[in-house]
Amino acid sequence: MPDYKAPLRDMKFVMNELLDCESHYAKLGADDASQDMVDAIVGEGAKFCEQVLAPLNRVGDEEGCTWSEEGVTTPKGFKEAYQQYVEGGWPSMTIPVEHGGQGLPESLGLVMSEMVGTSNWAWGMYPGLSHGAVNTVETHGTDEQKEVYLSKLVTGEWTGTMCLTEPHCGSDLGILRSKAEPNADGSYSISGTKIFISAGEHDMAENIIHIVLARLPGAPSGTKGISLFIVPKFLPDANGGVGERNAVTCGSIEHKMGIHGNSTCVMNFDAAKGFLIGPENKGLACMFTFMNFARLGTAIQGLGAAEGSFQGALTYAKDRLAMRSLSGAKNPEGPADPIIVHPDVRRMLLTQKAFAEGARAMIYFTAQHADVVRMSEDEAERKESDEMMGFMTPILKAFLTEVGYEAANHGVQVFGGHGFIAEWGMEQIVRDTRIALLYEGTTGIQALDLLGRKVLMTQGEALKRFTKLVHVFCKEQADNEEMKQFIEPLQKLNKEWGDVTMKVGMSAMKDREEVGAAAVDYLMYSGYITMAYFWARMALIAQQKLAEGSSEAGFYQAKVQTAQFYFKRILPRTSAHAESLAGGAEVLMQMDVENFVF
Amino acid sequence: MPDYKAPLRDMKFVMNELLDCESHYAKLGADDASQDMVDAIVGEGAKFCEQVLAPLNRVGDEEGCTWSEEGVTTPKGFKEAYQQYVEGGWPSMTIPVEHGGQGLPESLGLVMSEMVGTSNWAWGMYPGLSHGAVNTVETHGTDEQKEVYLSKLVTGEWTGTMCLTEPHCGSDLGILRSKAEPNADGSYSISGTKIFISAGEHDMAENIIHIVLARLPGAPSGTKGISLFIVPKFLPDANGGVGERNAVTCGSIEHKMGIHGNSTCVMNFDAAKGFLIGPENKGLACMFTFMNFARLGTAIQGLGAAEGSFQGALTYAKDRLAMRSLSGAKNPEGPADPIIVHPDVRRMLLTQKAFAEGARAMIYFTAQHADVVRMSEDEAERKESDEMMGFMTPILKAFLTEVGYEAANHGVQVFGGHGFIAEWGMEQIVRDTRIALLYEGTTGIQALDLLGRKVLMTQGEALKRFTKLVHVFCKEQADNEEMKQFIEPLQKLNKEWGDVTMKVGMSAMKDREEVGAAAVDYLMYSGYITMAYFWARMALIAQQKLAEGSSEAGFYQAKVQTAQFYFKRILPRTSAHAESLAGGAEVLMQMDVENFVF
Repeated sequence: MPDYKAPLRDMKFVMNELLDCESHYAKLGADDASQDMVDAIVGEGAKFCEQVLAPLNRVGDEEGCTWSEEGVTTPKGFKEAYQQYVEGGWPSMTIPVEHGGQGLPESLGLVMSEMVGTSNWAWGMYPGLSHGAVNTVETHGTDEQKEVYLSKLVTGEWTGTMCLTEPHCGSDLGILRSKAEPNADGSYSISGTKIFISAGEHDMAENIIHIVLARLPGAPSGTKGISLFIVPKFLPDANGGVGERNAVTCGSIEHKMGIHGNSTCVMNFDAAKGFLIGPENKGLACMFTFMNFARLGTAIQGLGAAEGSFQGALTYAKDRLAMRSLSGAKNPEGPADPIIVHPDVRRMLLTQKAFAEGARAMIYFTAQHADVVRMSEDEAERKESDEMMGFMTPILKAFLTEVGYEAANHGVQVFGGHGFIAEWGMEQIVRDTRIALLYEGTTGIQALDLLGRKVLMTQGEALKRFTKLVHVFCKEQADNEEMKQFIEPLQKLNKEWGDVTMKVGMSAMKDREEVGAAAVDYLMYSGYITMAYFWARMALIAQQKLAEGSSEAGFYQAKVQTAQFYFKRILPRTSAHAESLAGGAEVLMQMDVENFVF
Repeated sequence: MPDYKAPLRDMKFVMNELLDCESHYAKLGADDASQDMVDAIVGEGAKFCEQVLAPLNRVGDEEGCTWSEEGVTTPKGFKEAYQQYVEGGWPSMTIPVEHGGQGLPESLGLVMSEMVGTSNWAWGMYPGLSHGAVNTVETHGTDEQKEVYLSKLVTGEWTGTMCLTEPHCGSDLGILRSKAEPNADGSYSISGTKIFISAGEHDMAENIIHIVLARLPGAPSGTKGISLFIVPKFLPDANGGVGERNAVTCGSIEHKMGIHGNSTCVMNFDAAKGFLIGPENKGLACMFTFMNFARLGTAIQGLGAAEGSFQGALTYAKDRLAMRSLSGAKNPEGPADPIIVHPDVRRMLLTQKAFAEGARAMIYFTAQHADVVRMSEDEAERKESDEMMGFMTPILKAFLTEVGYEAANHGVQVFGGHGFIAEWGMEQIVRDTRIALLYEGTTGIQALDLLGRKVLMTQGEALKRFTKLVHVFCKEQADNEEMKQFIEPLQKLNKEWGDVTMKVGMSAMKDREEVGAAAVDYLMYSGYITMAYFWARMALIAQQKLAEGSSEAGFYQAKVQTAQFYFKRILPRTSAHAESLAGGAEVLMQMDVENFVF
């Protein structure tokens, strides 16, 4: 298993040098998030992740979770680590002070999520899922619901889940069947089966609060007839403690490709007692309040995969000896050169590095907009940031998990045959990461969201908001000779992005299938350009620091060089995506279903 | 687990309609391979794979192999299936008659390998590894060695392995350390540790014949000091039966990402008795006699991954209901439409289909050249075919396993969250296939072989041999209006391929690192063009059959439509690879090793 070392230098580069988080926090009045405080929190978080969570990562994979009638047992050490996490006060970090939290910005929470997720994704999903439940109760719950549930979720004494998927529906929640029958006391009897419920049952906390989508009697069909319910595993007693066992049970846990340490549960609701949260039939809208944020959380899995597999592969590439450099032996005393001398190994390592650091910039940038949405008192600013988040979210969720998965596969490849062997930990990253392309909306669903809803339905407004950023940056740097290598291709692509979008829009007016046919290529195309913008901005900062004679020349040189690698060797992928999406829908739609196979 | 159905119609299309295997076999004097015989063999093989091997695929994955001091136990049913395979005479199918085999062409053996490998790759590796040992003894063994070992390997009573890799070396065999000390009786004492020995120990056959690379005392260092040895698990007794146990033992088996049903062994040679095969210090050359063929066998894993995951995903896409078609409900009575109506699902299915059928054409084509190399009496023809095989092999091995892996991932993606769940079998295909990009020479090693050895070292001759084929075909079809859609882009790319090669060659003269820096992009670029040529040829045949009013219009329409999909939506990837490789070596090589991470 590769050791995990929190990439603090790069995290600080993005937070401070690229995004000036100190001013950002000050502007939002997040006074607790002073530079010292941020450094202290990140440092403590890094220690916890490196020392407590990382060593449990392979244990979790090997041991997995165990189901019995009594419940689910998590892998050895998971429970104790969670206890430490609770004692450290981590669950309450970003909860508003009025609800008993520390009121720190969400963006800082995401920095911690990156470290937790990279060191042990399966473990991180337990507190991660709680976060969604907390947000839901916080925003849509009654005062009483907040008092009863939020207080326990905030401390981490109780955990939460989100129960959406059913055996016959995942992406298409409009056809879900779980039912809620009103009881005389104002509560509801919830019946139905939910599947793929992450952290649905476990032994880490004394109670689990399920947020469940179900239909009221006579509710309209489709997505407009879905309501949201709180269904606790144990009903709270009069003192707010754990009371009577509710009729919600874990029927089984899934055997799956990865994230073995996290329990993926089939949850059976047999007239379980539930409480309506939010307005009747508005459950999906309530649930989706936090969808952008939840998807941002999933995007982190792509970042974590790139970072973790890069760390493992880099260590190996420096140690492993095989063959000689084509330009002369680099380790003449040894029997062969370390494989990092070989250009193709470097190609893989630099791809991982470019994706990890590029992803970090994209996620932290978007997280600042999440802060504004939640904390700013300026409504126009909030709206602006909300729209930026809406645009960035599908790109981050789908593009970053796709390239993170690619990076994880490069990690295996750098190890050669050893990459396939469990002990090295590289194949686990591939298996764990594979789910990121599926849950919280598959790549295809995200792509439809981006192209259909975010771009075309706004007549390109959402895109223009971003391309304008790029345009302004390019204009500012127009006379910067050193930046030309980045500005020229970026400017060209930024313009082409608009043209490509226009063309898709035109063809979609003739044939709506063109949207779905173009969507994934369009999303990947957009992702590579978006990342290029952030790489150009990072290169600029690095060039400035080098010009100032920074004492950290190596770090900044590597930044510039990684940007150069990205522009020369990765960004050309935009050509293929642009050409492929121009290939249109007809070649996808023309084949009769019965002719696919003979 | 998806059912496996041998794609007989498509296999016959490639064998008969594309490659005219009847004439091919007749020309080689392979009289036994009459059309009737071929059909009978393929039909019987299909039955065995569908009914015996496919049902064991998931069992093998779940149960895996078990190690004990006494040896390795294979998953339930594996042994019995092997017994049936032996009784069916399959091991001897392609062995020359003079060595007790049936003398059928290798290309027919590969057709069987496709079915075996697609239905159960892990199982197929047991007889698959024997094939390499058989070929080695057949070509390099003394008459006595043939008598003792070949006779038992041919029937399948004994199986074989190839022992190359050591803990510290895989790709770089020049630094291997295993030793062979001469004994007084003319035999050798072999000492050393070999790892990643597939089928190194198991319970399916009474003896295992290891073909082992080791160094003689005083042998030159590097690849020129390696010799080849036969090291049997049990020394043959005077009657050719199983005699004394030799000092070769399986120390452990690996825990790995996939192919759980196959034992991947650490083999310890503790002064084990071995017998030199082939000339001293020429072991690597002897071993590499069959490398092209072994790599062709691995390429089949890419084909199998594409075919198997396509079959699974297609079935699911027809069944699973989610959302409505954007162009109007296709299943208005149901709650939603089957997902095969959605363009992005079709994009994934068609990608799998295009890769599977394209791979089949490429592999069967190359296998005919393998037949010529082995069976033709015309030396010039043999040389020509050997060179064509040399050119095609790295493309097939690396490109087809890369796209096969992509196809396997599409299979998971079509299933949404269910793709991540073991029961559906889709994630197993991903895990099993991942190794194909690593063993028998990684993608990077294949790419160096293609660009460095096959293309640049021959001054482009090997490439020209293939581009000439393409050129002639394009010229022949120049006036065919219906073929224009394929011929125009193919001709353009065929020319560009030469230009790209020339440019890489020029820059490699200035800096040798340019070869390694360009290699993988060059290989993928070449792969997509190569596959495009075969798709164009297949489209032509299909168009002709449609014009003739074939009764199988659906099959041929699908062929043309898949070709159209491939040209419009997949072939544009060549642009990205060409641009990326033009990005050059500097951006890979400039970063100081210590600056990769801070």
